Amino acid sequence: MTHQIGIGVIGMGWMGMVHSRAYRQVADRFYESGIRPRLVICADEAEERTRRAQETLGFEQVTTDWREVVEHPAVQVVNIAAPNYLHLEMVRAAAAAGKHIFCEKPVGRTPEETAEIEYLARKAGVLSFVGFNYRWAPMVQYTHQLIQEGQLGRLTHYRGRFFSMYGSNPYGLLTWRFDREQAGLGVLGDIMSHVVDMAHMLAGPIRRVVSRRHTFITERPLPRPAAGGTHFAVGQPDDPKGPVTNEDYVSALVEFENGAQGTLESCRVIFGPKCEMAFELNGTRGAARWNFERMNELELYLPEGTQAHDGYTRLLAGPGFPFHGRFNPGDGIGIGYEDLKAIEAYQFLQAVVEGTPRPPGFREALQLASVQAAMVRSWESGTWEEVVSLERQEPA
Amino acid sequence: MTHQIGIGVIGMGWMGMVHSRAYRQVADRFYESGIRPRLVICADEAEERTRRAQETLGFEQVTTDWREVVEHPAVQVVNIAAPNYLHLEMVRAAAAAGKHIFCEKPVGRTPEETAEIEYLARKAGVLSFVGFNYRWAPMVQYTHQLIQEGQLGRLTHYRGRFFSMYGSNPYGLLTWRFDREQAGLGVLGDIMSHVVDMAHMLAGPIRRVVSRRHTFITERPLPRPAAGGTHFAVGQPDDPKGPVTNEDYVSALVEFENGAQGTLESCRVIFGPKCEMAFELNGTRGAARWNFERMNELELYLPEGTQAHDGYTRLLAGPGFPFHGRFNPGDGIGIGYEDLKAIEAYQFLQAVVEGTPRPPGFREALQLASVQAAMVRSWESGTWEEVVSLERQEPA
Amino acid sequence: MTHQIGIGVIGMGWMGMVHSRAYRQVADRFYESGIRPRLVICADEAEERTRRAQETLGFEQVTTDWREVVEHPAVQVVNIAAPNYLHLEMVRAAAAAGKHIFCEKPVGRTPEETAEIEYLARKAGVLSFVGFNYRWAPMVQYTHQLIQEGQLGRLTHYRGRFFSMYGSNPYGLLTWRFDREQAGLGVLGDIMSHVVDMAHMLAGPIRRVVSRRHTFITERPLPRPAAGGTHFAVGQPDDPKGPVTNEDYVSALVEFENGAQGTLESCRVIFGPKCEMAFELNGTRGAARWNFERMNELELYLPEGTQAHDGYTRLLAGPGFPFHGRFNPGDGIGIGYEDLKAIEAYQFLQAVVEGTPRPPGFREALQLASVQAAMVRSWESGTWEEVVSLERQEPA
Amino acid sequence: MTHQIGIGVIGMGWMGMVHSRAYRQVADRFYESGIRPRLVICADEAEERTRRAQETLGFEQVTTDWREVVEHPAVQVVNIAAPNYLHLEMVRAAAAAGKHIFCEKPVGRTPEETAEIEYLARKAGVLSFVGFNYRWAPMVQYTHQLIQEGQLGRLTHYRGRFFSMYGSNPYGLLTWRFDREQAGLGVLGDIMSHVVDMAHMLAGPIRRVVSRRHTFITERPLPRPAAGGTHFAVGQPDDPKGPVTNEDYVSALVEFENGAQGTLESCRVIFGPKCEMAFELNGTRGAARWNFERMNELELYLPEGTQAHDGYTRLLAGPGFPFHGRFNPGDGIGIGYEDLKAIEAYQFLQAVVEGTPRPPGFREALQLASVQAAMVRSWESGTWEEVVSLERQEPA
Ligand SMILES: NC(=O)C1=CN([C@@H]2O[C@H](COP(=O)(O)OP(=O)(O)OC[C@H]3O[C@@H](n4cnc5c(N)ncnc54)[C@H](O)[C@@H]3O)[C@@H](O)[C@H]2O)C=CC1
Ligand SMILES: NC(=O)C1=CN([C@@H]2O[C@H](COP(=O)(O)OP(=O)(O)OC[C@H]3O[C@@H](n4cnc5c(N)ncnc54)[C@H](O)[C@@H]3O)[C@@H](O)[C@H]2O)C=CC1
Ligand SMILES: NC(=O)C1=CN([C@@H]2O[C@H](COP(=O)(O)OP(=O)(O)OC[C@H]3O[C@@H](n4cnc5c(N)ncnc54)[C@H](O)[C@@H]3O)[C@@H](O)[C@H]2O)C=CC1
Ligand SMILES: NC(=O)C1=CN([C@@H]2O[C@H](COP(=O)(O)OP(=O)(O)OC[C@H]3O[C@@H](n4cnc5c(N)ncnc54)[C@H](O)[C@@H]3O)[C@@H](O)[C@H]2O)C=CC1
Repeated sequence: MTHQIGIGVIGMGWMGMVHSRAYRQVADRFYESGIRPRLVICADEAEERTRRAQETLGFEQVTTDWREVVEHPAVQVVNIAAPNYLHLEMVRAAAAAGKHIFCEKPVGRTPEETAEIEYLARKAGVLSFVGFNYRWAPMVQYTHQLIQEGQLGRLTHYRGRFFSMYGSNPYGLLTWRFDREQAGLGVLGDIMSHVVDMAHMLAGPIRRVVSRRHTFITERPLPRPAAGGTHFAVGQPDDPKGPVTNEDYVSALVEFENGAQGTLESCRVIFGPKCEMAFELNGTRGAARWNFERMNELELYLPEGTQAHDGYTRLLAGPGFPFHGRFNPGDGIGIGYEDLKAIEAYQFLQAVVEGTPRPPGFREALQLASVQAAMVRSWESGTWEEVVSLERQEPA
Repeated sequence: MTHQIGIGVIGMGWMGMVHSRAYRQVADRFYESGIRPRLVICADEAEERTRRAQETLGFEQVTTDWREVVEHPAVQVVNIAAPNYLHLEMVRAAAAAGKHIFCEKPVGRTPEETAEIEYLARKAGVLSFVGFNYRWAPMVQYTHQLIQEGQLGRLTHYRGRFFSMYGSNPYGLLTWRFDREQAGLGVLGDIMSHVVDMAHMLAGPIRRVVSRRHTFITERPLPRPAAGGTHFAVGQPDDPKGPVTNEDYVSALVEFENGAQGTLESCRVIFGPKCEMAFELNGTRGAARWNFERMNELELYLPEGTQAHDGYTRLLAGPGFPFHGRFNPGDGIGIGYEDLKAIEAYQFLQAVVEGTPRPPGFREALQLASVQAAMVRSWESGTWEEVVSLERQEPA
Repeated sequence: MTHQIGIGVIGMGWMGMVHSRAYRQVADRFYESGIRPRLVICADEAEERTRRAQETLGFEQVTTDWREVVEHPAVQVVNIAAPNYLHLEMVRAAAAAGKHIFCEKPVGRTPEETAEIEYLARKAGVLSFVGFNYRWAPMVQYTHQLIQEGQLGRLTHYRGRFFSMYGSNPYGLLTWRFDREQAGLGVLGDIMSHVVDMAHMLAGPIRRVVSRRHTFITERPLPRPAAGGTHFAVGQPDDPKGPVTNEDYVSALVEFENGAQGTLESCRVIFGPKCEMAFELNGTRGAARWNFERMNELELYLPEGTQAHDGYTRLLAGPGFPFHGRFNPGDGIGIGYEDLKAIEAYQFLQAVVEGTPRPPGFREALQLASVQAAMVRSWESGTWEEVVSLERQEPA
Repeated sequence: MTHQIGIGVIGMGWMGMVHSRAYRQVADRFYESGIRPRLVICADEAEERTRRAQETLGFEQVTTDWREVVEHPAVQVVNIAAPNYLHLEMVRAAAAAGKHIFCEKPVGRTPEETAEIEYLARKAGVLSFVGFNYRWAPMVQYTHQLIQEGQLGRLTHYRGRFFSMYGSNPYGLLTWRFDREQAGLGVLGDIMSHVVDMAHMLAGPIRRVVSRRHTFITERPLPRPAAGGTHFAVGQPDDPKGPVTNEDYVSALVEFENGAQGTLESCRVIFGPKCEMAFELNGTRGAARWNFERMNELELYLPEGTQAHDGYTRLLAGPGFPFHGRFNPGDGIGIGYEDLKAIEAYQFLQAVVEGTPRPPGFREALQLASVQAAMVRSWESGTWEEVVSLERQEPA
């Protein structure tokens, strides 16, 4: 049985293109699922981006007005890949129109906004999904499986981090990411959200935190009005500058509900690591380490009493690991970043087909936002803060 | 200016699907090139494979008779991804029809057959291309560039290998790969061809060789007639068996025309390495190491007299390296195996647009076949053999 | 000019033997210094240990009464390698006798005891040294040098850790290390002291901390009276048990005086890492990573604007790095753990020859103890604590 | 029971000092063996070297006439660490005096000289030992043990190499190593001898070979008469030069008696590797990789059918591995190069105590020389050469 699902994508920048390709891959990679996404319409302020997407990816229609996506009758899934400050408004409209929603992280600019977004979708009874793509790496999924099966014993330690160079150049432009108004939180909302999401998936809910933030680069060149200003664009030393109004760095000590102890850390202006989204975890019977910079590998410690295995084993991704066989049949043949997005898209569409939520949706984003809120409180209080659910009971 | 190019694919097994996806990616990843491949028709004996390809990748037509692909008027490029024993016949037909030809490696089952294929295409004046995909890894291309620029000095050593586990299970089926009649050479034709091609690209022509072969697993379970029998399928201990009639292992000492010394080695039944297609090379001013199992990395030694750099630097792929920026904008965000095939497809289509050959075509395959022929002679003679070009002057 | 220096060693367990060998190495490895240690006398409760040390290392005399070491007229340096609970008493006696003191870490069982010890030695005007041996790894010294020269720019991040499996077996005996009375602090005093010392050396003083501790294994088998019970001895499941009275785990967020942000973490019961004493640090112009498990390597990031060096370079220890050439003349020929102790011994004896302190002495141990005290306060307060010097003005 | 053994060392350069320290370590590290080496006398042309050795290591006597060592009545073991061209003469004298002989590799300058040396010692009935120190790395010994126990199955592949930078600087002096007269063979005799010895120990006798040599740097600055000219000394571009008369590089394809296929390779002028003495071996049930640059690690593949172990496990040296516990009690605490020499010295002295040979003695050196002779023949013949034992039946 095949399931055609109409897709509308909003924001055809980096992520919008990536998501669109991901939908295109689903029918091919997950053939047996019967899911056949249909790229109905895409929207971007920059018209040429929509044209290019249409030509190269096959959207049936394009628009510069994102509300047309939401309202299009053939669209069942609205995919939001616009800047953070538009997420709330777009979710509101999509939920009102009864559409299922895929929203890129961070869902809201602030924990409170995420709570509102979660509330809107819950009230509307629509399904949701969030782009925590690192979850879907086959070696991460395998780690998750081992933990669930109890093979690593009781978890005792979890160390998560995301160190990125994306803002390390002090002449990197003052794009929306560095502005509290448009982006909301800084690195805590941006890449630290992946760290917390991963920790939640692997080690379970966080009970309490003590956290710290810092802004290393306090002003940056203003983007020139005309220029598109992508994520990685760089200005000149003598360009006019504006203030960075959210944090570059965040660290935290955390305690999980299951008693595991952890540290979480993230920085967007660190010099050295390129895209070090990584975890190390230890249990009473085993341990695992993973780093996105080598996403097709897992270092697994499962000695099982033998000297020959009393060290970390470097496993290479292959068809024996979750999802990997969808992409190629050979051990040691790596998949790429965008393939994680194809798995992600499949997961959501499968949820849509079944009519039941799959994680990570707004529910998980809310859990994460609750941790972020505790971290923010800790920045002020300088002390441990319990994680308190931000779940809204009433509309705002 | 856009260039629509009609594509026909023959053999919709692993590679046929991979190639088809690759063509689909070209318009998107190499947008500015204007190249817009059109998936006109695909063929496979197994009809359901063609149906699936049509549904998921959008071929306009499908067939079980590969000659329809060759003859289709809208097809400009014939892509051959059928088993080796069909390559000659298919190339003959495609060349006769004046079509440009992409042929998977090994081009011919034997060096002689490759020479014949090269001759046919040359005579017909059509362009050709071969699936030596490892060439296209951004970090390999970067290495190539450094060598060309002289940054590594004069090359002195080259060590190439491809160690794969694909046949290491003695109950792995006796598929066409293990049969001299259907596959021609064993590992020398199969994965060692990548090793020699890489050596040629990076270190230049090989002048002479001394080589050895061995077959470790001399018989294997016969595939059951009905079963599809893919590359990685496994039989039962009590299945009827047949003889393996080509080599599992080949090694060689080689001398390059530029005076560099090398060793090349490959095995398809080795226990340990998964997909270790790798090289290490040294020059008088620098050195480099690469392994497909970590294809998004390069270990580069370029001390330039400073202590701080007097060791191998681990470079992570990113947009600063050849082609990588086509796939994503961030350092340390890896691409996957199939992305190499997209680069490969682009290279060939660019050659087609320009009407001039780009390597690696049948010309380079012939050079490689000449090396293989010298190795085969060395197996018999037990001594060094000069590489002699197999280029045909007259038709067979 | 040669300098004979009389050495007395107290406690001939693991460290006592290691230190004695280290002194023996000094004349050989640091020949030109003219330093010629003389192994005058050693003491241990267990007489056979002193006999063995005499026979194999050449002590002139042995005793079971450590006070004889302190009082011996030929002894200029008293080396304390007895369990922690004896350090204070021994230092008091040695200082009173006007002897220079090498004391193993942790100097005192508690920060306060360390302060008292520092005070005693300061008052007595004797030189002191502490066994923070990881400092002396050539690759760590080289990192220190790069930082001092400003080559890594302004430090922004420091992550230090020491993860050890030494207590991970729940049947590991309840030796003195797990007892607050005898050992004082748990992992914070034991191996975390190396982490803080390293952080101080490389990144400078810590200004404030927030910290957490945990005890994972709350009881352990009691050592049988007769058995010696070394560091790594293991009991039986049905042995009688006693409570672990100090912490297994400690973590902290820290802020350095220079503005760098850090995390420090240590555990003695973690499952996976063997002896992972490691740091990662980042500055505005470079970065470095080191792990004692690969002590002869350094991963150094100093891109200096070139793509070829825009990754971590793996440097192998060799004669070009500090001290390494004392041990062998070849690049890539590793030294061992005990060689760090030889460098350490040399440093102290050089201080003795010169009559001026060299770090790390009790002064540095006091600085470290002040950080530990802040961490201990933070365990109770749950909040950030400023580091306040514990330096004593008056005798206790 | 203690065994005092009188030691005489000839040649107090790098190796002479290393050996002397090794003997000094034996009583300490292998206490229970009862072996108590006595450093009786050492000899060197350079008198100051003997003085230094006496002062720092405790030799009872020194001399500049090596024959005094051989003739000294208290000397039971003559340790030869003089340049290669003196080995034969020294062995002849020592054997004639009925002394047991430790001789550094290469035993003879040429395979024939090694055969003569072996013959002399055999005739005299003295025990012998050779400095193939890499054998003694705990992780190598462990690999040996696994192979002996059959845990890796039947060996199929062996790849050995020793790549060193020691001669890579073209201005490195023309020391005796580069001179056929004084050193005999070049890299084949020098560091390739370690490669062949390791292959023999791990994979058993080599049956036949085809080999190639090359000299990359054909002339070098002459050492100035006065200057000592150590292993790593460097001249000036305008120094007078002399010809290099032996090979820089050797490679070989080899077949072992047990059917395993291999490649062996070594170069002393390669640019990149520092001290890469390494092997990779595969069997039908497991595989192992080791590299001296990380001598305290072993990468072991022993999947035993489980997915969790289907990759190489990185084992860190520790007391559970052969000999390691003699040096320290903790997992992950590395030993150094010279510690291998202590194990080596112990092995030989144990043989002396027991009165029965232990490998590797001249017998094993002869086996190795027979392989080298086959390689040398292959350089001329250009073809496969069987290994024929050079064992002498009659005195020369
Ligand atoms: N999951 C992940 O790892 C990643 C997630 N993201 C998230 O994806 C979202 C988008 O980020 P990027 O694609 O990197 O940004 P981008 O700047 O490349 O793309 C944003 C696009 O939205 C368009 N846009 C802006 N306002 C619009 C409007 N009113 N109507 C229609 N289109 C509009 C822009 O023209 C642009 O094309 C963000 O929320 C970001 O946090 C981004 C990168 C990675
Ligand atoms: N570049 C590379 O790294 C790789 C290259 N290859 C090469 O690609 C080629 C195909 O290999 P795979 O895709 O792995 O094999 P496969 O067995 O998966 O696919 C071969 C396909 O050809 C079809 N076929 C057989 N006879 C046919 C006929 N008469 N007409 C139409 N279709 C026919 C089969 O039904 C099958 O679908 C081979 O030459 C192989 O050496 C394969 C794998 C990797
Ligand atoms: N720097 C480093 O990395 C390390 C430092 N240490 C420190 O070294 C010190 C000793 O530790 P280990 O050598 O591991 O312990 P150990 O238990 O092996 O040795 C202690 C020795 O002291 C002796 N001893 C006990 N009471 C004595 C007394 N009253 N008089 C004379 N001798 C007495 C014991 O008999 C024993 O031989 C501790 O402070 C420890 O924290 C230990 C290991 C590593
Ligand atoms: N097992 C291994 O890994 C190594 C083995 N070796 C071997 O050790 C031997 C010595 O090499 P190195 O110590 O590196 O050389 P070196 O040049 O450092 O030392 C040789 C010493 O022999 C002395 N000597 C020369 N002629 C003499 C004579 N007639 N009487 C007494 N002494 C004399 C020299 O003065 C010098 O001190 C060589 O056979 C070499 O191949 C060297 C380095 C490593």
